[in-house]
Amino acid sequence: MSDAVTVREVGLRDGLQLVKTRLDTHTKLDWIRAQSAAGFSEIEVTSFVPPSILPQFADAAEVMVGALALSDLLPTALVLNLKGARRAIEAGARKITFVLSASEAHNQSNVRRSTDASLAMFRELAKDISTQGQIELAGAIATTFGCSLQGHVSEARVAEIAEAMCAAGATEINLADTVGYAHPRQVVRIFKDISAITGPVPLAAHFHDTRGFGLANVVAAFDTGVLRFDASLGGLGGCPFAPGASGNIATEDTVYLLECLGAKTGVDINALLALRAKLPSWLPSENLGGNLLHAGLAHP
Amino acid sequence: MSDAVTVREVGLRDGLQLVKTRLDTHTKLDWIRAQSAAGFSEIEVTSFVPPSILPQFADAAEVMVGALALSDLLPTALVLNLKGARRAIEAGARKITFVLSASEAHNQSNVRRSTDASLAMFRELAKDISTQGQIELAGAIATTFGCSLQGHVSEARVAEIAEAMCAAGATEINLADTVGYAHPRQVVRIFKDISAITGPVPLAAHFHDTRGFGLANVVAAFDTGVLRFDASLGGLGGCPFAPGASGNIATEDTVYLLECLGAKTGVDINALLALRAKLPSWLPSENLGGNLLHAGLAHP
Repeated sequence: MSDAVTVREVGLRDGLQLVKTRLDTHTKLDWIRAQSAAGFSEIEVTSFVPPSILPQFADAAEVMVGALALSDLLPTALVLNLKGARRAIEAGARKITFVLSASEAHNQSNVRRSTDASLAMFRELAKDISTQGQIELAGAIATTFGCSLQGHVSEARVAEIAEAMCAAGATEINLADTVGYAHPRQVVRIFKDISAITGPVPLAAHFHDTRGFGLANVVAAFDTGVLRFDASLGGLGGCPFAPGASGNIATEDTVYLLECLGAKTGVDINALLALRAKLPSWLPSENLGGNLLHAGLAHP
Repeated sequence: MSDAVTVREVGLRDGLQLVKTRLDTHTKLDWIRAQSAAGFSEIEVTSFVPPSILPQFADAAEVMVGALALSDLLPTALVLNLKGARRAIEAGARKITFVLSASEAHNQSNVRRSTDASLAMFRELAKDISTQGQIELAGAIATTFGCSLQGHVSEARVAEIAEAMCAAGATEINLADTVGYAHPRQVVRIFKDISAITGPVPLAAHFHDTRGFGLANVVAAFDTGVLRFDASLGGLGGCPFAPGASGNIATEDTVYLLECLGAKTGVDINALLALRAKLPSWLPSENLGGNLLHAGLAHP
């Protein structure tokens, strides 16, 4: 088994979509450049959603174009529908993550259509892309581990969606714990079961740390063979519950944990911590988390 | 393998020893009563150390006597030397945790004597106790996973100490990650190796969450068969580094995680969260952590 692991920064998307501070395009690109220079090969740089809904991403095309200029970086974009995907492709995106939710209630709330309707869009997008050359298409399944609106999410439904996405041509399946419900035993079970369905299509994991289980879930997923992890610098993404509670797992803690587990992330941890130390100057009114900046490395 | 797990509250000792607020005896006993009523069978209620060094524990004997009045609780006390142990026994303690450090530098800094001198004290205490009837004696090995003063701690030294403690009559060996250096792979390796030495003497785990790995380490230790975990309500114990960084793993998150893993802690999680919600009124100027109070249970 390879020990090379990709930690994909999603702070510029999952993080920024939940914070009040509008970050200007110039600063976003400074962040992307610094994180790329710290050894990150993949960064979710933006989301192609209607600017009327999320003004934070009104500059999606500019950010994508700026990020594509960096030679060692694969910038990715999140999309929720065909229109967004087409804007991403127009901007030159070489990897797109299409998100739908396994929870019917969550998908309706998020994009006002059924999960099946989103899946039909995914199929159409996959067909479009197949005629466009080398664009990677990740299928992300939100609320894989449970949903705060609907409650239980059927694993069979997740499996069905993953299978359909692979059949349509997905180049990655990303299982997302959107609301922080996952626990390690569940992570092991679901990743094992779904990997039997996705076969050669790699799995990625997207964990939130809402209940403090995020890093334990990373270990669990890594132990089943997952080599792609989303994380957000400083745990940016804040908290839907209370100040101080955390959203995404923090990139710096995740990278350090994976290195401790023997994985090779390719990240220069000191350069990453230097970037993390800058984050409060860009987002002065946001609660930031993550432990490593304050605690420092063990065995320094 | 049994699924019954003991989570031992150490907030009244490891937590309070690091905070500035002096908690009065009455409030400590209210806390102990509420936590016992929530299903905790074991609480480290105090530390028998010189009041001149830690005035927080000047009421150690009163707290122990008060806690011993609760019928379903085994109150434990931490001691660092024979004098403290004798005070604990005098107060009626039925379980004592004697701590020494595997790191020579840390032991010198903590108690101004060599680790071997502390070990000799442990042997003497074990001999004393063997003539006193039914007193349990846990041997806790601080800095088992590394030391911020000395750096690396030899696993062979930890093994040697654990073996000597068992030979002397320890009824439990507690491996403590005093400075939050442990990571899951190391936890698995060390607990497996040490359990081969301690044989029937049960192992306990004491993790800090300094780098956010605390709960991942709980999973790792549980997977090797550990059934005794220390934790501190609200992660009390604060942080030696910066506000917001955490010390001990939070009891409420630990209990919930272990229940998710299939363990039976015997704890009423809602009663525990009600107690956790009270903590800020007792310690208004302390930083408290833990995620579960704010996030709530998954799948509620």
